[in-house]
Amino acid sequence: MSGKTRVLVIGCGFGGIEAVRALSRARDEVEITLVDRTNHHLFQPLLYQVATAGLSAPAISGPIRHILRPQMRRGNLTILQAEVKAIDAPGRRVTLHDGEQLAYDHLIVAAGATHSYFGHDEWAAHAPGLKTLTDAFNIRQRVVNAFEQAERCEDPARRQAWLTFVVIGAGPTGVEMAGTLSEMARHTLVSEFRRIDSREARVVLVEGSDRVLGSFVPALSQRAAEQLQKLGVELRTGCRVTHIDGDSVRFESTAGTEALPSHTVVWAAGVAGSPLGRALADSVGATLDRAGRVLVQPDLSLEGHPEISVIGDLAAAKSYTPGAEPRPVPGVSPAAKQMGRSAAANVLRRLRGQTTQPFRYADYGNLATVGRKAAVVDLGVPGLGALRFSGYFAWLFWLFAHIYFLIGFRNRLIVLIDWAWAYWTFERNARVVPQAQDHA
Amino acid sequence: MSGKTRVLVIGCGFGGIEAVRALSRARDEVEITLVDRTNHHLFQPLLYQVATAGLSAPAISGPIRHILRPQMRRGNLTILQAEVKAIDAPGRRVTLHDGEQLAYDHLIVAAGATHSYFGHDEWAAHAPGLKTLTDAFNIRQRVVNAFEQAERCEDPARRQAWLTFVVIGAGPTGVEMAGTLSEMARHTLVSEFRRIDSREARVVLVEGSDRVLGSFVPALSQRAAEQLQKLGVELRTGCRVTHIDGDSVRFESTAGTEALPSHTVVWAAGVAGSPLGRALADSVGATLDRAGRVLVQPDLSLEGHPEISVIGDLAAAKSYTPGAEPRPVPGVSPAAKQMGRSAAANVLRRLRGQTTQPFRYADYGNLATVGRKAAVVDLGVPGLGALRFSGYFAWLFWLFAHIYFLIGFRNRLIVLIDWAWAYWTFERNARVVPQAQDHA
Repeated sequence: MSGKTRVLVIGCGFGGIEAVRALSRARDEVEITLVDRTNHHLFQPLLYQVATAGLSAPAISGPIRHILRPQMRRGNLTILQAEVKAIDAPGRRVTLHDGEQLAYDHLIVAAGATHSYFGHDEWAAHAPGLKTLTDAFNIRQRVVNAFEQAERCEDPARRQAWLTFVVIGAGPTGVEMAGTLSEMARHTLVSEFRRIDSREARVVLVEGSDRVLGSFVPALSQRAAEQLQKLGVELRTGCRVTHIDGDSVRFESTAGTEALPSHTVVWAAGVAGSPLGRALADSVGATLDRAGRVLVQPDLSLEGHPEISVIGDLAAAKSYTPGAEPRPVPGVSPAAKQMGRSAAANVLRRLRGQTTQPFRYADYGNLATVGRKAAVVDLGVPGLGALRFSGYFAWLFWLFAHIYFLIGFRNRLIVLIDWAWAYWTFERNARVVPQAQDHA
Repeated sequence: MSGKTRVLVIGCGFGGIEAVRALSRARDEVEITLVDRTNHHLFQPLLYQVATAGLSAPAISGPIRHILRPQMRRGNLTILQAEVKAIDAPGRRVTLHDGEQLAYDHLIVAAGATHSYFGHDEWAAHAPGLKTLTDAFNIRQRVVNAFEQAERCEDPARRQAWLTFVVIGAGPTGVEMAGTLSEMARHTLVSEFRRIDSREARVVLVEGSDRVLGSFVPALSQRAAEQLQKLGVELRTGCRVTHIDGDSVRFESTAGTEALPSHTVVWAAGVAGSPLGRALADSVGATLDRAGRVLVQPDLSLEGHPEISVIGDLAAAKSYTPGAEPRPVPGVSPAAKQMGRSAAANVLRRLRGQTTQPFRYADYGNLATVGRKAAVVDLGVPGLGALRFSGYFAWLFWLFAHIYFLIGFRNRLIVLIDWAWAYWTFERNARVVPQAQDHA
């Protein structure tokens, strides 16, 4: 290890993994340590499928050590399962939760994002978000439990509260969750209950702005809204949530205030940078945006700290195209991957005495699924302009794009079979929860 | 529902499911309620595969409501997810944990078994058993975590404690666990670590009696012991565990006392009847055997309470063959299924005014796997006597028998693919744990 540059990567999401892959090729120059709280890489775009019992957790996640086995073989990578507690930028080291310290020459922070409850952290207990496998199991358990509790209720009002599902936030995750919950109630669970009709379940999607999928063009938002309504989802745009307590959700709009009795609420509204962004702000005075993301230089490093890069969902980064205004980079997986490769290349440039390059995001488009046979696709085709479509063909496109990008051939195969099966049978195979839950 | 006999079935393991299936055909005579704590039926014979990350939970379990959909359609079945707290036999009703009461005319108790720590309940926290999905996830997390902790250890003694796995009890579950853990260390994880060599892991299988797989003939026990040793498992027969505290395990034999530093201990030694056996003893004076199982009449009912049947692992039942001595029924899934069908038939006989029939166990043999390409098989072939074999062919036989009996075509297909893949690659696909664990 003598003489090699020590690069420490925090986080093994899309950004961290790509950074490690790119760096490991420079086996004579860098010695890499990858630290993550968990033992797995998670394909977050399909996490809602785990939450709604369509896929098992292993189908969309893989052990980091297995995924990075080719890089391990190169001999310059150490993987540690540990949580970073503090970053000591002047001393160039991080402290882990158990007190161990790791020194670095270059640090790449790819710690991702968490939920933001807009100052109402007390809502977290009643309205779980969807970022980790634990979150997904939590939501799966609540959804399964809600139908079970409804079946046991004699009182119609209490029963309806169990059969009311509220999804807050109509970005891609919220839209996927609402569409899939409605599909479960209207197809998967039909005729499995004696006392309730699962089709009586209500799925209410609440959005603060005036349209769903705000990152798409208005015409596609409109198509997605129509598809959601066809799937039975009740849409409430222009609604601000004011209260969540596990028994009901209150929200207000220009039309007034509404209280909806519901025990099952999914939070898909706010995203906030990982707490490590705050640690960087405290340690080196990094600037955070309103969502707690770290403002970075064009080359993804920190101002005054070229040895620290921030990438992925934690970075408030811009894309630099010659001759155009810098544009904000969206929080999607292709952007995180590209940032990982760009940051790694800049680390190598620095240690070779070269000038670093600004990050340029190659935007291949934007996809979101709404539910069975329903999706919207917005592709940028170089030279042709935008290619936009929705409905069945968009859904097929979404399906194959996601399977293609799922890491590892085996996962792809299993997911393909699971989905082909689910498509024909409406069955959701992962509808098991480890143990009973007495109440919401 | 007027005039129909209300049959309440507690538990949806192999026994409960079969009882419901048989009863539901008598749609004009009985009204069935099935109560279970969980929402799923679990294929327990493969649970060790979930614990050792070879299979995902949904591959070996299915929602009860989905499995019993054909029976639901007959219109005389209600399924409730709830836990039974007490049985009021004189009043013919059970009380659920939330206070709700369910009345019955006939009760079938199929609540299964739990672990017994032989009076040392304080060991449970350090040495989880393997009966539920929660147990399996717990063990999977501990095993994954142990290798991660070892990778982070500088001290060789502490490292070795993390790399020492102790399995207590060499019945089928203990043998499967030990063999598979050794396979993980020697194949799956090789070259995924930087600081440790996973092959340095020790897997120690501790057994109180003088041989493994005591329910098999001695020759097959001997073959299983040889196969285990070939897989690298250290066998300690004739050893009694005297202490487990999460940092070490102490056991004594005629050779003396030994203390083995280990943080990862799996309990596969003692089985005890569900606490509902005790509830029956308190309510109607049912007699329990030493393992807490309920002694039943030849027709699987309780003495003095023909309206209560106990089946499956909770029953200390005997098999009655004309002209032969009654023989104890083993705690295996074919026996539970047969008891379920027999109890259901006797319920119908009773309500039709016919005489109940004694239970007769059709024993098709006994299988146990040791690990990759290693198993023992003991088949009773009518007219031919015993057919016994071990090794590769026994393993193939074991494999297909288990896939065949897995409920539901889809599960079978997924398991087959998972296993075919694992066979060629040594990969274990479910090696993800939801979140980090700081310590054992």
